[in-house]
Amino acid sequence: MTKQRLEAFSDGVIAILITIMVLELHEPHGAELADLRPLLPKLLSYILSFIYLGIYWNNHHHMLHATRHVSGGVLWANLHLLFWLSLVPFMTSWVGENHAAAWPTAIYGIVLFFSAVAYTILQTVIIRVDGNESLLARAVASDRKGKISLLLYAAAVGLSFVQPWIADLLYVAVAMIWLVPDRRIESRLQTQPAD
Amino acid sequence: MTKQRLEAFSDGVIAILITIMVLELHEPHGAELADLRPLLPKLLSYILSFIYLGIYWNNHHHMLHATRHVSGGVLWANLHLLFWLSLVPFMTSWVGENHAAAWPTAIYGIVLFFSAVAYTILQTVIIRVDGNESLLARAVASDRKGKISLLLYAAAVGLSFVQPWIADLLYVAVAMIWLVPDRRIESRLQTQPAD
Amino acid sequence: MTKQRLEAFSDGVIAILITIMVLELHEPHGAELADLRPLLPKLLSYILSFIYLGIYWNNHHHMLHATRHVSGGVLWANLHLLFWLSLVPFMTSWVGENHAAAWPTAIYGIVLFFSAVAYTILQTVIIRVDGNESLLARAVASDRKGKISLLLYAAAVGLSFVQPWIADLLYVAVAMIWLVPDRRIESRLQTQPAD
Amino acid sequence: MTKQRLEAFSDGVIAILITIMVLELHEPHGAELADLRPLLPKLLSYILSFIYLGIYWNNHHHMLHATRHVSGGVLWANLHLLFWLSLVPFMTSWVGENHAAAWPTAIYGIVLFFSAVAYTILQTVIIRVDGNESLLARAVASDRKGKISLLLYAAAVGLSFVQPWIADLLYVAVAMIWLVPDRRIESRLQTQPAD
Repeated sequence: MTKQRLEAFSDGVIAILITIMVLELHEPHGAELADLRPLLPKLLSYILSFIYLGIYWNNHHHMLHATRHVSGGVLWANLHLLFWLSLVPFMTSWVGENHAAAWPTAIYGIVLFFSAVAYTILQTVIIRVDGNESLLARAVASDRKGKISLLLYAAAVGLSFVQPWIADLLYVAVAMIWLVPDRRIESRLQTQPAD
Repeated sequence: MTKQRLEAFSDGVIAILITIMVLELHEPHGAELADLRPLLPKLLSYILSFIYLGIYWNNHHHMLHATRHVSGGVLWANLHLLFWLSLVPFMTSWVGENHAAAWPTAIYGIVLFFSAVAYTILQTVIIRVDGNESLLARAVASDRKGKISLLLYAAAVGLSFVQPWIADLLYVAVAMIWLVPDRRIESRLQTQPAD
Repeated sequence: MTKQRLEAFSDGVIAILITIMVLELHEPHGAELADLRPLLPKLLSYILSFIYLGIYWNNHHHMLHATRHVSGGVLWANLHLLFWLSLVPFMTSWVGENHAAAWPTAIYGIVLFFSAVAYTILQTVIIRVDGNESLLARAVASDRKGKISLLLYAAAVGLSFVQPWIADLLYVAVAMIWLVPDRRIESRLQTQPAD
Repeated sequence: MTKQRLEAFSDGVIAILITIMVLELHEPHGAELADLRPLLPKLLSYILSFIYLGIYWNNHHHMLHATRHVSGGVLWANLHLLFWLSLVPFMTSWVGENHAAAWPTAIYGIVLFFSAVAYTILQTVIIRVDGNESLLARAVASDRKGKISLLLYAAAVGLSFVQPWIADLLYVAVAMIWLVPDRRIESRLQTQPAD
């Protein structure tokens, strides 16, 4: 039951985060097509953040599917992840408003970086509870995608001060890497059921 | 379990979308009945969008009830549908503010059009996973209502530039078509249980 | 399953409605106790609406617990109820801003009136599906509380134009009547399980 | 089933509360790092409130896990708790805007105080329904943490008028006390299953 309620709460928070971002797309002041133009960067940053939150929901879903035990530590590691994700709508709005500026672009990357760190912590805490022989431990053994993402986020944060659009490209690239759902877990799940 | 969490997440997002639209009904500045009058087009567009999201929730509910397997592709096709639906509150607000204008009316239709396309994609992905002999495949075999809706949305987008209220009538007409829940699936479910 | 998802969706919408009302309590402009004073009527209308939505959640919960079958008609009757409830935050905000004015007070009552009508319709549709011998049918046989509420709402709407605070008292009175959860169903449930 | 729906509804409300607080972090007006500085107290109060709501969700989760019966009284005691928690985002925003001011700091503590009172009431109502020999009754027998928290909140409210930052420190201290999840219940649950 604990696991089920953890999933339900996380689903709730991520569902709300993914949806309230749209509240930042304020209706344009005029009724012409041209009035939508200034919204374009906001819409693009909304789409990117929507994909990122979708990726987190997807991977979170796979990870918990492979989880056996939920301890107090897991609950807090999960809340820690949700905290960083909760900053995404705010950063999306700021970077959408100032898409060519260095600092918003960099701090968007910092939020993504710490979200990824929080996800890794959650993964580590679950594995510590479930044991090194657990399904999840073997599925994410090397966690290459996780490490590459952290590197690319860090690079993007630095490059924001050179050319913000290079950082933007890197954010898109990391999303692409993850758009493929975590087949490591999915394939293991098919050969060995989690519960 | 995967299917259950997909339903819960989708329910969450649609429940939030259907509710935050009401945040755009800002309280009038005065306390007289006349102060409500400028809100009338906003209220009407809210009602129409409420019905549309209700229809999507309803049909999504029936479709997933008939679904057997959920793959990574289904998860993403579902997120894609939720993305288009997430633009509905924003468009509702814009069209409510400019109900007699061509572009808002047209783009409202474009969002509805792509929502319907995304729904069809989700349906196709599920059928590909479940097989052509599956309950869902046989229930939506010709999908006439889906095709007619796409045609009417396209017509409405074009007619927005002639007379916006004709487009509005078409949006109401499509809603009417769907208000009757998808009896094809419902009736099949009664003769053959989904799981 | 259908019933479970209907409950989950309704819970989601009511949970969001009860929570977003608080977004209308905008932080005061100063940092003194006196700066909270103009918020007082807003806070009081928030509390009353919070109690009303709590009552609806509570009774909805009891009613669905006693429900056996969910048809397409039940889904739409439920969405119809949620629609009226979704107008509560908007009206709460308006009446909170203009607590001594006739029209906001009257229209608050009209929204409550139609919410109650929608609840009665939902109840009737469920009973039609479940049959007159069903648990729910016998539990709400006379539905005296429902009828008295409708009368009091109607009276309050009229009295809003005489003295808004008399209408306010009536709204509080109806809430009091319902604060006692629907023991008719609860007591029947204890002697005869619903499923 | 009743218990499950109570959990789902509470999860929904707490998930929404924890998330809408982030809507108060309005994007800064400029694109420089310095433009984030005025947001710092708001961010800090957001973090503290996020932790508080996380604690409530966590403890609520443990408490209901140990609960056997849900009566009408439990439903209302739960709504009463949710009411006080629903004021947290509003107070977070006010105290974030006026972090050095006495009244916002004091009233933030008053909301925390009454949230704790409401939690204690809910606990008491559940124990009355479940019986003094129940798992929950024995787990929270002395409830020392609960009593200390109430004392510290009361002290903080008073000290807000001397030095607001001392009150802030006390709020942090109480959060620290609770960050350790309620091991009393957790440890009992391991030796004796709740259902």
